[in-house]
Amino acid sequence: MDTEVSVIGLGALGSALAGAFLSAGHSTTVWNRTRAKALPLVARGAVEAASPEAAVGAGPLVVVCLPTYDVAREVLSPCAAGLVGRTLVNLTSGSPAHARDAAGRARELGVRYLDGAALAAPSWVGRPDSLQLYGGPRPVFEAHRGVLAALGDPVYLGDDPALPAVHDIALLGLLWSALTGWLHGVALTGADGPGGGVSATAYTAVVGRWMPTVGRLMGEYARQVDAGAYPAGGFPLDQHLMLMGLLEHAGELRGVESGLPQAFLGLAGRAVEDGHGADGYARLIEYVRGRAGR
Amino acid sequence: MDTEVSVIGLGALGSALAGAFLSAGHSTTVWNRTRAKALPLVARGAVEAASPEAAVGAGPLVVVCLPTYDVAREVLSPCAAGLVGRTLVNLTSGSPAHARDAAGRARELGVRYLDGAALAAPSWVGRPDSLQLYGGPRPVFEAHRGVLAALGDPVYLGDDPALPAVHDIALLGLLWSALTGWLHGVALTGADGPGGGVSATAYTAVVGRWMPTVGRLMGEYARQVDAGAYPAGGFPLDQHLMLMGLLEHAGELRGVESGLPQAFLGLAGRAVEDGHGADGYARLIEYVRGRAGR
Repeated sequence: MDTEVSVIGLGALGSALAGAFLSAGHSTTVWNRTRAKALPLVARGAVEAASPEAAVGAGPLVVVCLPTYDVAREVLSPCAAGLVGRTLVNLTSGSPAHARDAAGRARELGVRYLDGAALAAPSWVGRPDSLQLYGGPRPVFEAHRGVLAALGDPVYLGDDPALPAVHDIALLGLLWSALTGWLHGVALTGADGPGGGVSATAYTAVVGRWMPTVGRLMGEYARQVDAGAYPAGGFPLDQHLMLMGLLEHAGELRGVESGLPQAFLGLAGRAVEDGHGADGYARLIEYVRGRAGR
Repeated sequence: MDTEVSVIGLGALGSALAGAFLSAGHSTTVWNRTRAKALPLVARGAVEAASPEAAVGAGPLVVVCLPTYDVAREVLSPCAAGLVGRTLVNLTSGSPAHARDAAGRARELGVRYLDGAALAAPSWVGRPDSLQLYGGPRPVFEAHRGVLAALGDPVYLGDDPALPAVHDIALLGLLWSALTGWLHGVALTGADGPGGGVSATAYTAVVGRWMPTVGRLMGEYARQVDAGAYPAGGFPLDQHLMLMGLLEHAGELRGVESGLPQAFLGLAGRAVEDGHGADGYARLIEYVRGRAGR
């Protein structure tokens, strides 16, 4: 049974990964401790392996998606010999330390290893905009990029296998920040206007036209952060702070939850108090960075 | 002196508006209390009016951008007769109440009136993705959409002249939320990785590939908010809460400022405590909405 890719671990996400490989026309071997999880994939053309060792032996690329790194280690430990000369892509969720650990063991064994993070609910897997992050040796990533593209948008971050885990949690934080700000706006616009306010769908259509500006500013501010210089570009921090105060006031008038505006008002207020009111927004990085960054 | 558009108020934003009309090839009349502000625009081909009345009389479309609604009222009160039969577009910054007030006075005088909000630093005006929001009678907007498009991306929100002010502050709130989340991620990824961390520019390139997913989720959740039903779609709130805890932990490890994650952890924590852990993220709208929305 020679197939292009093997998927070990068929939870909701693992099953979605295997399904996306099949949908893209890649021959796929699957294994799961509970065999019932394999059946829908076998019905779609997957080959079921009798053991993790058999799954590893089925082809050049082994994708692992298990509940934890400890489980992954336990499942894969009998497969060490079989993995030599093959590529192991570990999409199990874990911390940067987990990823570095696992990569270190793979290196000792002579196994080509990529750590990865699938930034996706299972139902998103296979969409062209669904992000998967990879870290490890670039040639290993390049060798398998074509097959991994079946899962969505594969992003290579660099040699360090911890990079996907680091980015994963940061990008989720950005998601929640943006979504909480969006909810706040839904509440504000929904509480005002004729006939009881603007619908969430109508507000969100306007948001869609605003997001390119949000993305553009991130790009500009990123260059400023890297340069360590924060020109205001016509929109200084003291004006941000004044407008943030209007937002807080608008929320108070409508009784909208205020934890989020207070978080960024606090940051901007400290920077303006410290005399940075004429700087641009990106100066706030110095207030967000930790002890190490000051 | 018959021109297509008159701009009254040549502060940084007003000057940028007049400059964008000129760049798009629209003949433009300008007026400012301090004449020096008009000179760079006259050098670019603008006609300088000797008074607000003369500026109003110069053409069919009058765009006003003054420091406050009170100043706008004071400047325009001698122009009431001249404004009859013309269109007044007020891009002065103010509250929803200011906008409704000004629209009411315009209606009494027989002046066609649009209230607007230019979501822009002066340097952004004229970019195709630079948003301007308008509220008032749709035929009035449609009659001038072509000329207003010189300023960027004109968005018509509806009859209520307060809608631009309501959206303006909500969209700024979303901007700060997204930017604060982005800064948090810059700090997290910058504190980790080999050689002292990932650059802000490198992290932001990955963010650019993540934002389509963020926007897609806003669209899905908007439909759920409007429907009042919050299916989890494979990503329930208790999983969000667990991952938010990992984000908080990652920030603590690196000493990153924690006000922002605490804001959304608090919201999600309350919803899960109330028994909504199996619902989707959009359930949180009920915790963000004010007294009126419960």
